[in-house]
Amino acid sequence: MGSRDSSRLVALGLHALQHRGQEACGIVSTDGAKFFGHHSGGLVGDVFGSAEVLDSLPGGASIGHNRYGTSERGSDPYSIQPFFSDHGDGRSGGGFAIAHNGHIVNGGELRARLVAEGAVFRSRSDSEVILHLLARASGSMEERVASVAGTLRGAWALVCLCRDRLIGARDELGIRPLVLGRRSAPSGGSDDWLLASESCAFDIIDGHAERDVKPGEIVTLMRGRAPRSLKASQTSQGSRACVFEYVYFSRPDSVAGGRSVYEARRRIGVELAREASIEADVVVPIPDSGVPSALGFSAESGIPFELGIIRNHYVGRTFIEPSGDIRHFGVKLKHNANRAQLENKRVVLVDDSLVRGTTSRKIVELVRRCGAREVHLCIASPPTRHPCFYGIDTPNRKDLLAANYSLADMESMLKVNSLSFVSLDGLYRAMGEARRVAASPAFCDACFSGDYPVAIPRKERQAIRKARHDGHAERQRA
Amino acid sequence: MGSRDSSRLVALGLHALQHRGQEACGIVSTDGAKFFGHHSGGLVGDVFGSAEVLDSLPGGASIGHNRYGTSERGSDPYSIQPFFSDHGDGRSGGGFAIAHNGHIVNGGELRARLVAEGAVFRSRSDSEVILHLLARASGSMEERVASVAGTLRGAWALVCLCRDRLIGARDELGIRPLVLGRRSAPSGGSDDWLLASESCAFDIIDGHAERDVKPGEIVTLMRGRAPRSLKASQTSQGSRACVFEYVYFSRPDSVAGGRSVYEARRRIGVELAREASIEADVVVPIPDSGVPSALGFSAESGIPFELGIIRNHYVGRTFIEPSGDIRHFGVKLKHNANRAQLENKRVVLVDDSLVRGTTSRKIVELVRRCGAREVHLCIASPPTRHPCFYGIDTPNRKDLLAANYSLADMESMLKVNSLSFVSLDGLYRAMGEARRVAASPAFCDACFSGDYPVAIPRKERQAIRKARHDGHAERQRA
Amino acid sequence: MGSRDSSRLVALGLHALQHRGQEACGIVSTDGAKFFGHHSGGLVGDVFGSAEVLDSLPGGASIGHNRYGTSERGSDPYSIQPFFSDHGDGRSGGGFAIAHNGHIVNGGELRARLVAEGAVFRSRSDSEVILHLLARASGSMEERVASVAGTLRGAWALVCLCRDRLIGARDELGIRPLVLGRRSAPSGGSDDWLLASESCAFDIIDGHAERDVKPGEIVTLMRGRAPRSLKASQTSQGSRACVFEYVYFSRPDSVAGGRSVYEARRRIGVELAREASIEADVVVPIPDSGVPSALGFSAESGIPFELGIIRNHYVGRTFIEPSGDIRHFGVKLKHNANRAQLENKRVVLVDDSLVRGTTSRKIVELVRRCGAREVHLCIASPPTRHPCFYGIDTPNRKDLLAANYSLADMESMLKVNSLSFVSLDGLYRAMGEARRVAASPAFCDACFSGDYPVAIPRKERQAIRKARHDGHAERQRA
Amino acid sequence: MGSRDSSRLVALGLHALQHRGQEACGIVSTDGAKFFGHHSGGLVGDVFGSAEVLDSLPGGASIGHNRYGTSERGSDPYSIQPFFSDHGDGRSGGGFAIAHNGHIVNGGELRARLVAEGAVFRSRSDSEVILHLLARASGSMEERVASVAGTLRGAWALVCLCRDRLIGARDELGIRPLVLGRRSAPSGGSDDWLLASESCAFDIIDGHAERDVKPGEIVTLMRGRAPRSLKASQTSQGSRACVFEYVYFSRPDSVAGGRSVYEARRRIGVELAREASIEADVVVPIPDSGVPSALGFSAESGIPFELGIIRNHYVGRTFIEPSGDIRHFGVKLKHNANRAQLENKRVVLVDDSLVRGTTSRKIVELVRRCGAREVHLCIASPPTRHPCFYGIDTPNRKDLLAANYSLADMESMLKVNSLSFVSLDGLYRAMGEARRVAASPAFCDACFSGDYPVAIPRKERQAIRKARHDGHAERQRA
Repeated sequence: MGSRDSSRLVALGLHALQHRGQEACGIVSTDGAKFFGHHSGGLVGDVFGSAEVLDSLPGGASIGHNRYGTSERGSDPYSIQPFFSDHGDGRSGGGFAIAHNGHIVNGGELRARLVAEGAVFRSRSDSEVILHLLARASGSMEERVASVAGTLRGAWALVCLCRDRLIGARDELGIRPLVLGRRSAPSGGSDDWLLASESCAFDIIDGHAERDVKPGEIVTLMRGRAPRSLKASQTSQGSRACVFEYVYFSRPDSVAGGRSVYEARRRIGVELAREASIEADVVVPIPDSGVPSALGFSAESGIPFELGIIRNHYVGRTFIEPSGDIRHFGVKLKHNANRAQLENKRVVLVDDSLVRGTTSRKIVELVRRCGAREVHLCIASPPTRHPCFYGIDTPNRKDLLAANYSLADMESMLKVNSLSFVSLDGLYRAMGEARRVAASPAFCDACFSGDYPVAIPRKERQAIRKARHDGHAERQRA
Repeated sequence: MGSRDSSRLVALGLHALQHRGQEACGIVSTDGAKFFGHHSGGLVGDVFGSAEVLDSLPGGASIGHNRYGTSERGSDPYSIQPFFSDHGDGRSGGGFAIAHNGHIVNGGELRARLVAEGAVFRSRSDSEVILHLLARASGSMEERVASVAGTLRGAWALVCLCRDRLIGARDELGIRPLVLGRRSAPSGGSDDWLLASESCAFDIIDGHAERDVKPGEIVTLMRGRAPRSLKASQTSQGSRACVFEYVYFSRPDSVAGGRSVYEARRRIGVELAREASIEADVVVPIPDSGVPSALGFSAESGIPFELGIIRNHYVGRTFIEPSGDIRHFGVKLKHNANRAQLENKRVVLVDDSLVRGTTSRKIVELVRRCGAREVHLCIASPPTRHPCFYGIDTPNRKDLLAANYSLADMESMLKVNSLSFVSLDGLYRAMGEARRVAASPAFCDACFSGDYPVAIPRKERQAIRKARHDGHAERQRA
Repeated sequence: MGSRDSSRLVALGLHALQHRGQEACGIVSTDGAKFFGHHSGGLVGDVFGSAEVLDSLPGGASIGHNRYGTSERGSDPYSIQPFFSDHGDGRSGGGFAIAHNGHIVNGGELRARLVAEGAVFRSRSDSEVILHLLARASGSMEERVASVAGTLRGAWALVCLCRDRLIGARDELGIRPLVLGRRSAPSGGSDDWLLASESCAFDIIDGHAERDVKPGEIVTLMRGRAPRSLKASQTSQGSRACVFEYVYFSRPDSVAGGRSVYEARRRIGVELAREASIEADVVVPIPDSGVPSALGFSAESGIPFELGIIRNHYVGRTFIEPSGDIRHFGVKLKHNANRAQLENKRVVLVDDSLVRGTTSRKIVELVRRCGAREVHLCIASPPTRHPCFYGIDTPNRKDLLAANYSLADMESMLKVNSLSFVSLDGLYRAMGEARRVAASPAFCDACFSGDYPVAIPRKERQAIRKARHDGHAERQRA
Repeated sequence: MGSRDSSRLVALGLHALQHRGQEACGIVSTDGAKFFGHHSGGLVGDVFGSAEVLDSLPGGASIGHNRYGTSERGSDPYSIQPFFSDHGDGRSGGGFAIAHNGHIVNGGELRARLVAEGAVFRSRSDSEVILHLLARASGSMEERVASVAGTLRGAWALVCLCRDRLIGARDELGIRPLVLGRRSAPSGGSDDWLLASESCAFDIIDGHAERDVKPGEIVTLMRGRAPRSLKASQTSQGSRACVFEYVYFSRPDSVAGGRSVYEARRRIGVELAREASIEADVVVPIPDSGVPSALGFSAESGIPFELGIIRNHYVGRTFIEPSGDIRHFGVKLKHNANRAQLENKRVVLVDDSLVRGTTSRKIVELVRRCGAREVHLCIASPPTRHPCFYGIDTPNRKDLLAANYSLADMESMLKVNSLSFVSLDGLYRAMGEARRVAASPAFCDACFSGDYPVAIPRKERQAIRKARHDGHAERQRA
């Protein structure tokens, strides 16, 4: 909030957060009177790489969003956030814009009620429900957010841009992340205050993270003023930040909840090495997300770490499969085995998580074909046995390997000598806790434990299941 | 309503109606359960020229819209109609779509009221107001249209697509056109019924015009049934169809109000020749819209008709002006004088209307430089002295030549030997009326007479004036 | 040659000549040291519509070319002229560029010889042969052109751009057009001299045609000097300019061989009316090329002229056929019948030429379905019975209607009451000749007469025939 | 040579080799009769990601090329290889295509001679010289290659595609790499033989490297036959493969000259640790190319390895700099420091090479701002003091940091506590040699030693210097 170059800074922040969503992106800016928007499918560097586009987004405050391809119909241009409500008199500007991360589990119900009241929806996104609720609430925007917060159930981290202020809010369990940042004014004025899902978005613009937005907090940023904070709800229940952000989703150079994500991953590798105790010649990460855990595993076990699998980071649109006779084609576009580090070796392969198992199976085969003597697959998270309903796009239960097969079965399906997961307690130890306390776990770990901190209505559960099934079927066909 | 190929037929109809708007176009289709949409800037042949796009619009009923670049912000993707309201439960489809031609003069007021009630607007288009009013009304869609019709003031021809029906409606004065068409079922089933702004949209798909939708009428089309008609309002006031549709806007091969547009234009030329009585060697139309009137003028006056100005129909994005030393550049991209028909001749130049006079001035100079001895400019409409507030994008009063200068002044500014306009009565005679009856004119001729059949609120008038001023300034800069 | 804005002027000229080729276009410019080029598929306004592209083509002299889609593989980017030979030392620039209009009938033979000598060809274009011959000839560029002229057989009008001069040349029969133009220097310096296929290219940039380049002439333009002329060959045989340029190919506002193209077409209509003597109610042109002849026909016959067929000039990529049940779809995208002018009328339809007859048949049906009582098709050229081998893309003989059917057969196939063609002598009279003198015709009229002024080698004839067959088959499939 | 899917396989191979050139790419295929080509700027996945493009490249044999952006004008479409010579009779196909990696140091001289003989050049590429020489040579294509090999001086690895065979050749010193690969026929036929710059191109299509093409060797691949080899020249001088391929250019999972590139890099890290002997807390690679050396350094020194710098692999077009106040912007788009691994640490930063020093300086500052106590920069190659003239795009001498400053100066410029390079002998040891033998070094190490194995003509040297200067200036401006 504040910089003259606000849309450029937001574009850089979105670039730093590109790993959180690659399908589409958008920015809405305001010059204090009018609002300006640009949304498009594609990567941030492509969508916001031209001066022409950035110049069409003037003003001292902006918000942006990277769209994460979930199961719902993604190519719809109306689904690209930030969402905007044009409140002007038809000509003079006005309104507000929001960007939302998470999932509203009572979204379907709220939507049905809004439609019955004559609300005009453009997308299937549950985030659009928040837009309508805010438009219909009354009072200042902070009051609206506070009132709407009482209606929403699920996971939601929200930023809301008005003409003269930027508001951030987080659900009362703080499931999805939201960080408050600060950036020194280049020419000695008052500091700019910032909001982002991860701290790495501040680093890229020479800012730094000040603190996490607290669960249930509503924070208001205005030019030239210190942030003002309003606690919307004060439940007795503690925070339940998503542990999967540490396991996989966040960037390793981010700091969340006071923890370095890299360090957390490295320590999971240490715990995993302790629990697994494998004899081997080399520890090989599945790049890129397996690297920190593999380093921790190597340090703890004393088994040397080598890049036995090389990742090709160049990507393009899509490749067309040659006719049938080339195996593991998709994997090979991204990964190649480094034979020199694998031949005749007992290999510990470290990956961050095991979901469907499709990629793991192919990588194991790649490694075997290079002459590895043994392959031990070590997973730096517990078995993923439950789908997420709070904003992470996981498959349905029937497609989760660990939800359907025993360890022995999986070992044989994946053709590995052994398969190890870190325990839930090991994961919590890596996060700095003594262990997982079942009565009040420090994190949302529903994907591993099945313990969902917010109940999901049955209809919503079915709808998501169907959307995921259809989405997966479609991707299979494509 | 009915064909399996409905989006293809609508794309063809939009192509036939391309002259009504070149800025952008869109189609929404329904298969009876879900709705599908595609909108984009560009010409119909470019936007809907691929099988991929048309295949993404399945279903037996579709509506489409060509966006006419008015003064309001045109490049906004959210302004491209048809507008859509997604009424589903968030996953299973449902809703309705509308396409609107005209202008709601109390749009600003209605919008302000809707925003105060929490409606979320995406565009600055007054047509979006109709969408919200329909969403908030109750009852069947016909009942909703009937109820909303009582709220809207101004010019509106509307088509509304629901899952199982297509509804057409026209304001009570019938200012903007809407025609009901019919198309034989190719394989012997029941006929398809169609709606369009002009009859030429039916010709391209082997259909034909059945009749105009009547002022104030609401007509419902359902597969396999004859159209059902509902008179929403029965005012004593007569129809006031826009006369400018005959003068310029409609295609000459269309039939509206039972009149051939070509014939009407030709007869204006006849009236003009009678009123102007000029001695000359050749009648030259300014192509393409001046041709029918010039033929009428030539037939009536006995002066031979020749193509003294040739039009180049190839267009591209934009051309970059060479540095200053090439005069009349914009005109020359489109028009070239045919020296052999002009040299040493007394030339009658016939154009459809005189608005700003910019193009006329340049064409007169082109003709003069080819050695014409005399140039008589004959305009096949009365002087345009008043802006339109009912959906035609005219300049503000201060930019209308005839609103600011005397005939003699204009003759000298345009460097013509004489300037003639058809009289208002002459225009009405050409339309088949005895004369214009001031108490109850048969047409809306506000741009010529200043007699506005629907009062325009002062705020709306100011807002449009400002938008037109800004839009013009922007185009001048570009 | 000379203007600072040369590439902008050439882009405008290409736009004025867009009717000569719509497939692709290119410009090469030189600043006197380096050469710069841009080539692309598409219309001139699209390819050269941006300042960025034009700024990449600096320098005081430029040449350009519109690619006409002939039967040969057209989408090949290497086939887009001007062709360029980079003669530099690999870094400092240099070379020359050519643009060619016509067809080299001994191109295949010359190409084979060049390939045997190690020439590297990039395209299948016969024009590339000229490039290689010029590169291998010796002496000044004028001397090279003169020497190469002796080798080439067929129709060729050529412009050749060197660092310090622009050279134009035309084959010794002058089959294809080339005009010398002049443009006053805007700021009082010496005039710019110009070369183009048609005079309308000079009009658009405020220049004018000075004279035709003479058959066999080589003309050199240098900045600040009057054109210098060199007669490469002085054969006894007279000029044989292509008469089809007047019938169809050239723009009506061009002047060629001292004749207004529009006037020539109009006079053909006059001759046609005299020869055909039809009783009818209305003369209707098939737009746009039939208009001048229809005006002449109407003037001579006294039958009123009306626009009974309306043309839609908006075009896009391609339209996808709806499933089978819409007849004459392609024609309808472009033409619609104007029922009011046709119903119950005896109609004279005037078209410029009759080639395959496909479009005519569809238009006749369109007219009949509007209720015309009689349809008389009058063609403003003699029957097209022979293919062109000099640069106009006609079908093979077996696809030329008039080459395969009697007049009566054609009347019945086209479903017309009568079919008339102007006679060869009538055509020559319209061109200002007394009649066609078989021993020394004033024009190349091979497509009508079969009298080919330059013999076509048998292999070339076969190759063209095959290419046309394949090209047609491909277009049928597409 | 042989697969039905040859262009798809080549596209995959080009994708695996994307690191060798990102500017543009092309493929030429042949079906044994005709040739087909597609070339475009952009990444392989974008250019060859559609079935439509790949289907336009039919046939059993194909070659491809990634264009490496060197200093010469890169955006020229005519510079994109493979280059093609169309030898047909103008219609029936035929010809040959080449792809070249390296630089012909007598290219300027050869080009001047060819131009004087009438050769038509389209590009400024020295590779086009080879095309013309092959076209002008006589005999079978192998004989032509052999004869042309005697004319070319410099570094060249060449593949040449004819209708019925694929020929590979390498200069007599083997400076640039070329590998012979093999791929089992999927359905039991005879194996396919393949050629590529690096073995990783075979891995992606389930093939494997058979052996390097030998310096001076000409190898012919024909469908269904074993490769035939012809030694074009048998000089006494030994092989001089480019050592920089191991240091930086090749992918770590490739095997060249029998050495694993990864292993070579790792051993350089080991040598570096021995020679540098630094006391520190953590070894941090500059990703991605510094990783293997850093692992070797860590293993040898016992200092723990951590990812202290995180690389963001998402890229887009270009980012627009915010107004001046954000430092190190370009570096930050790609790299972020991982504060948790750097704060209060003595850090060894490992990079592959030090060229201009611009990036190193910025990364050191990034690391210092995270609170590192000491920064020791260790470079896994000797000081780069001499430009490459054999195909690697290095800056001119005056821009090479190590060519202009002492070690102490560089330490102070880069703000590091120490700067270390591996010695030339250390590098040779890592490559498996005892040491560098000055009389007959096993590698081309001219960039480090200044010992150029092929003399560069003075004019060529100047021309390259100028091109690099201009290219760098242009990039600075952009």
